[in-house]
Amino acid sequence: MAVDGALDMKREESSSISSPHVHKVSSMSTNTLEEIFHPQSIAVVGASDNPSARGYARTAPLLKHGYQGKIYLVNPKYSEILGIKAYASIRDIPGPVDYVISCVPAPEVLGMLADCSQKGVKTVHLYTARLSETGRREAIELEQKILTEARNQGIRLIGPNCMGIYYPRQGMAFNDALPKESGSVGLVSQSGQAAEELARLASLRGVYFSKAISYGNALDLNECDFLDYLSQDAETKIILMYVEGVKDGKRFFNTLRRAAATKPVIIIKGGRGKSGTRAAASHTASLAGSMNIWEATVTQAGAIPAEDLDELIDLTVSFYFLPSIKGSRVGVVAEGGGSSVLAADQCEEAGLDVIALPTEIREELKSKGIPAWDWIGNPADMSIMLGIDFGVDDMLEIMAGNQNFDLLIAMMEHRYRGRLKPKGNELKPLLAVMRERSLGSDDYNSWKLMRQMRKKFIAANIPFYPTIRRAARSARKLIDYYQKRG
Amino acid sequence: MAVDGALDMKREESSSISSPHVHKVSSMSTNTLEEIFHPQSIAVVGASDNPSARGYARTAPLLKHGYQGKIYLVNPKYSEILGIKAYASIRDIPGPVDYVISCVPAPEVLGMLADCSQKGVKTVHLYTARLSETGRREAIELEQKILTEARNQGIRLIGPNCMGIYYPRQGMAFNDALPKESGSVGLVSQSGQAAEELARLASLRGVYFSKAISYGNALDLNECDFLDYLSQDAETKIILMYVEGVKDGKRFFNTLRRAAATKPVIIIKGGRGKSGTRAAASHTASLAGSMNIWEATVTQAGAIPAEDLDELIDLTVSFYFLPSIKGSRVGVVAEGGGSSVLAADQCEEAGLDVIALPTEIREELKSKGIPAWDWIGNPADMSIMLGIDFGVDDMLEIMAGNQNFDLLIAMMEHRYRGRLKPKGNELKPLLAVMRERSLGSDDYNSWKLMRQMRKKFIAANIPFYPTIRRAARSARKLIDYYQKRG
Repeated sequence: MAVDGALDMKREESSSISSPHVHKVSSMSTNTLEEIFHPQSIAVVGASDNPSARGYARTAPLLKHGYQGKIYLVNPKYSEILGIKAYASIRDIPGPVDYVISCVPAPEVLGMLADCSQKGVKTVHLYTARLSETGRREAIELEQKILTEARNQGIRLIGPNCMGIYYPRQGMAFNDALPKESGSVGLVSQSGQAAEELARLASLRGVYFSKAISYGNALDLNECDFLDYLSQDAETKIILMYVEGVKDGKRFFNTLRRAAATKPVIIIKGGRGKSGTRAAASHTASLAGSMNIWEATVTQAGAIPAEDLDELIDLTVSFYFLPSIKGSRVGVVAEGGGSSVLAADQCEEAGLDVIALPTEIREELKSKGIPAWDWIGNPADMSIMLGIDFGVDDMLEIMAGNQNFDLLIAMMEHRYRGRLKPKGNELKPLLAVMRERSLGSDDYNSWKLMRQMRKKFIAANIPFYPTIRRAARSARKLIDYYQKRG
Repeated sequence: MAVDGALDMKREESSSISSPHVHKVSSMSTNTLEEIFHPQSIAVVGASDNPSARGYARTAPLLKHGYQGKIYLVNPKYSEILGIKAYASIRDIPGPVDYVISCVPAPEVLGMLADCSQKGVKTVHLYTARLSETGRREAIELEQKILTEARNQGIRLIGPNCMGIYYPRQGMAFNDALPKESGSVGLVSQSGQAAEELARLASLRGVYFSKAISYGNALDLNECDFLDYLSQDAETKIILMYVEGVKDGKRFFNTLRRAAATKPVIIIKGGRGKSGTRAAASHTASLAGSMNIWEATVTQAGAIPAEDLDELIDLTVSFYFLPSIKGSRVGVVAEGGGSSVLAADQCEEAGLDVIALPTEIREELKSKGIPAWDWIGNPADMSIMLGIDFGVDDMLEIMAGNQNFDLLIAMMEHRYRGRLKPKGNELKPLLAVMRERSLGSDDYNSWKLMRQMRKKFIAANIPFYPTIRRAARSARKLIDYYQKRG
């Protein structure tokens, strides 16, 4: 925690920015969000030591992730929570409070905001839900009162009905399962569950987050504010978005275009059809709008659309590990006859060019005394090499040296020996395929082996995918992105 | 093993069927294949006790799966293999030999066929490869000589370049990893690897095979022979096919149409594009042909096309566990806000009708005192029920009793308590979604939990899928199938 004096100075500066009359959200400076992301102290209001309570679920991760500022817990029912002194009210906290996480029920929010105002709180994250998303009139009216009150008091709101900020470098987290490691992927997500899922799944493929924001009903701060911030954030190299609805289409388009000009922005839309739109309304009170307009907006702005969370992860992994690829001539290595045929089909259907095996490679195989030199093709079916000391790594090394290939895709289940380390050297871009099928297996050793393979890939900076189709589709979108940029 | 006398009689009968002049493959009776699938004795020629040798790979599974007939091993280099007496030649075997598995190199096949002929062998499975699929002229010529010689001797051939027969009920298997359990799914596959993969993956979802045939280059017996046989086989209720090319398009269409009229036939084509066609040629010497004609053929014949092996498994699981479903109104249960929105989108995009939650269900929830009765929808986002004793199973039970739904799809990761048992009673058809994401996790308990869930689903006859999208697409194809049939 910072020295009190320094903190006070900082707070004075900020009060001139987040003044009581900040109505033009679109002109909000990045500095304000810089402050929001770097609170010196957090108070959890409605904290609890009961593991099934919502107030516990927002408190424990801060402790577990080692939040670096000061943590205050507020709940009049307790004198101590999880070994930390509890205060009856925010007003009772001795030091300054920058950031409040509200776990109180919706009817208590207005009272809590009044306390926050007295205390000089700058940001309130409303984990509190059951507001406009319920569709109930009194809840919608209450939500509007909360916004008016916050604006009157110069308090910025995240939410309501959201998980708030995940900023591992600083120990801010909203879930115990979120990785403690930091990376360079930023996320703006209307869904907290999607944020959690994305961060967890990305980590299993070697990719970590700089900052993620779950912003729920977007009553005050919305997707544009956070997108704009991440586009200027030096810690963030790739931006992901999960959006159900936007408040201001024109502003969204301009912000997205500006952001996409600085770094890859990969975006998924929730609420695409009739029933999804209905679900989005009851999830985050979003008006989903026309899918045609959405797609045109995203594409024209230069962002990369994803169809589901799995594709979003695939694209993230691709942009994270792969360099700029501008050609689509792919060398494919597979581990069986049928899978070679299907791999060729799937690469071609994804828009990659599975060229015939270059003559130079045949000559090289011949000179190495490989008996199948005139039979092996592209895809290279390594099962015809059975009994010969020439494996997936060997074939990949030869293909990597050939200028006719722009990229390589290889099935490397159980077979990768860890020799190739594409990122950071001159080797050809390589996408590995390792199928996620351990679920079904009772075989502990097979599960262990897959974990080892996963770690080898990550250590070698090789992105991996659960199917050839997913690898190929992801590669194609990456190539499209870099081709457009010339 | 049968008594010698009885066997001899049987052999006499068969010799009149598989006479030296069986050239009209299309008129081959099912009885001949019945014999091929029920050999009283098998000889492995080129057997070996060296685990890295091809002759070992075809011998060990027969022993491990407990083949019920007599096994003879042939290799002049050994006097004993894996504890079993080895013969120098087929001719040295004392008893009759019905079925031979050839593991000898291609140049030795003609000599071996002469021995088979002397011994009265009816079927030779040529595991032997490196024939026409290599594209080499002398190999193509040799393959034709093998066919001529076999026909002259009245020997039927499976292959060359294939894994042959998997018939678990009888202990015939070509791979140790193949399940020993029997089921009702039959498979005709040009690729042995695909056959092995399909059998293994299906077993992990509670589905087992009656018989599978990997037939490779289809020099003599081909896809039509095996399809015709399975369509009349009482042990087979669902037929799967992996085909790279067919020899006779008209016969294939007629056989497929006949088969599809008796049971569901789910079919995947390998070699769909330019590079896949090239790969198919070098895999099984198949001429892949036009994809447009293929699709028209399959659809007109009443078969169900699959796009990849994963979809083939999904469809198999669907037809295996689900009844005839003729409507597409789906009730969806999900475990989070974002995933509910995306689930709705994906079901709708797959062609299912995610109807609004029926009023009767709201009334029932209200009468049960569920606070979110007027907020919960379809998809039902169970995360808004947090802290209330009302889980996925409870919601599913209420939906199952409502006549407005034709089927239900539910995300049940870690949550299914084993109460619902759809098959065999009057409950609504239910598809469970359990994501295959244990690969990445280092968490042993999570892996263990997923295995337990998997077993619960199988025990309850509930088909499960790794994503909502895959469940929804599979359901749609099943509904299309039953709607067409009226």
